[in-house]
Amino acid sequence: MRENLKILAFDVFGTVVDWHGSIQREVNAHWPQIDGDAFALAWRAGYVPAMQRVRSGELGWTRIDDLHRLILETLLPTFGLTHLTQAERQNLNRAWHRLDPWPDVVAGLHRLKTQYTLCTLSNGNLGLLTALSKHGQLPWDCLLSAEVFRAYKPDPATYLGVADVFNVKPAQTALVAAHHDDLAAARACGLVTAYIERPLEYGPHHAKDVSPQAGNDFHAKSFLDLADQLGC
Amino acid sequence: MRENLKILAFDVFGTVVDWHGSIQREVNAHWPQIDGDAFALAWRAGYVPAMQRVRSGELGWTRIDDLHRLILETLLPTFGLTHLTQAERQNLNRAWHRLDPWPDVVAGLHRLKTQYTLCTLSNGNLGLLTALSKHGQLPWDCLLSAEVFRAYKPDPATYLGVADVFNVKPAQTALVAAHHDDLAAARACGLVTAYIERPLEYGPHHAKDVSPQAGNDFHAKSFLDLADQLGC
Repeated sequence: MRENLKILAFDVFGTVVDWHGSIQREVNAHWPQIDGDAFALAWRAGYVPAMQRVRSGELGWTRIDDLHRLILETLLPTFGLTHLTQAERQNLNRAWHRLDPWPDVVAGLHRLKTQYTLCTLSNGNLGLLTALSKHGQLPWDCLLSAEVFRAYKPDPATYLGVADVFNVKPAQTALVAAHHDDLAAARACGLVTAYIERPLEYGPHHAKDVSPQAGNDFHAKSFLDLADQLGC
Repeated sequence: MRENLKILAFDVFGTVVDWHGSIQREVNAHWPQIDGDAFALAWRAGYVPAMQRVRSGELGWTRIDDLHRLILETLLPTFGLTHLTQAERQNLNRAWHRLDPWPDVVAGLHRLKTQYTLCTLSNGNLGLLTALSKHGQLPWDCLLSAEVFRAYKPDPATYLGVADVFNVKPAQTALVAAHHDDLAAARACGLVTAYIERPLEYGPHHAKDVSPQAGNDFHAKSFLDLADQLGC
């Protein structure tokens, strides 16, 4: 156990759950003829630009569920799915509520939970986070989201907000994430940082560089590896 | 299982946890000479007036942790505890983070969780709810609090906020509480209501009327009884 560290806040998409594989599987279960790999990548690629429309003020505060739906509407013509009913579109959009965790996650969280308070820190909305946590049986102590802070990562209000909710110092809080930009923003706010290797985040055909970068306090191959390093 | 009902939102103080017994035990473990029963009742009695100071605008938005501390300061002279250091006062204030659940709670929540999404809806802040849930091993799917909605119960924004977070109708959401006024406010917003008998909420020397009142959809002796009635 690392002294003084109290709170582990986890990025979710890519770090906890395999969005690429889950979306690809769900799309191909319904429509085997569609390139599920391309569909998953295109849906995710719309995510940062959509949040930018909120940040810029073009859109008011919008939950990720609704941003996912906006992006989905733009994908349907490309993938030949304009015949989908409103109910079918809503159900497909809810694929993001059924994302599967990586294989090490549940066991790793249970070990880490014995010595730390575990929360999410995701741009996903609370309803989405609740659904995928129930789906994956993820043992969080608390769900925190951009929705609570009314700001998306990498806004400092999100990282500092975690420390504030638990009435601890930023240095007593760690961000656990598979993305160096997220960790860099957390580090700038004084948080401890832990990088998790997720080489398959974009699927087996799209290599991801998971080599260590300077500045992170921890670099782990999985949540089990992180638990080992933290003595849990 | 009641058709269409999706979300069970639980009041916490008195409904889930035994604040009176827990505070009394903690006070008397440190200071056996103090009337722990009177101390617990006085601390809790300051709670509604303190929230009223926020509602009226006299105080800005304030977490319950800080309201508990304000009330505690007024109690220390009465109970002969003005010699407590700042650290001792803070630790005593954190007694509210260590409240024990009623004996039926953990088993009842596990049964209810198999068919419903379970969340808190408490005026307690997220840090407090997280701590007492970890202490009592309470298997929530999500923690919701006045802190998320920036409004205390019985403000409609809290009850309607639960339905909004999960993107369901108010009628698909139930408030579970041991207090008829809380349930009446939820019912006025269109929520289903479930009353839980907690005859010992104010301790064994202060009787509480737990007889059924018209208007509630469910009246249960415990969370296990509620699980029976909901077919979980």
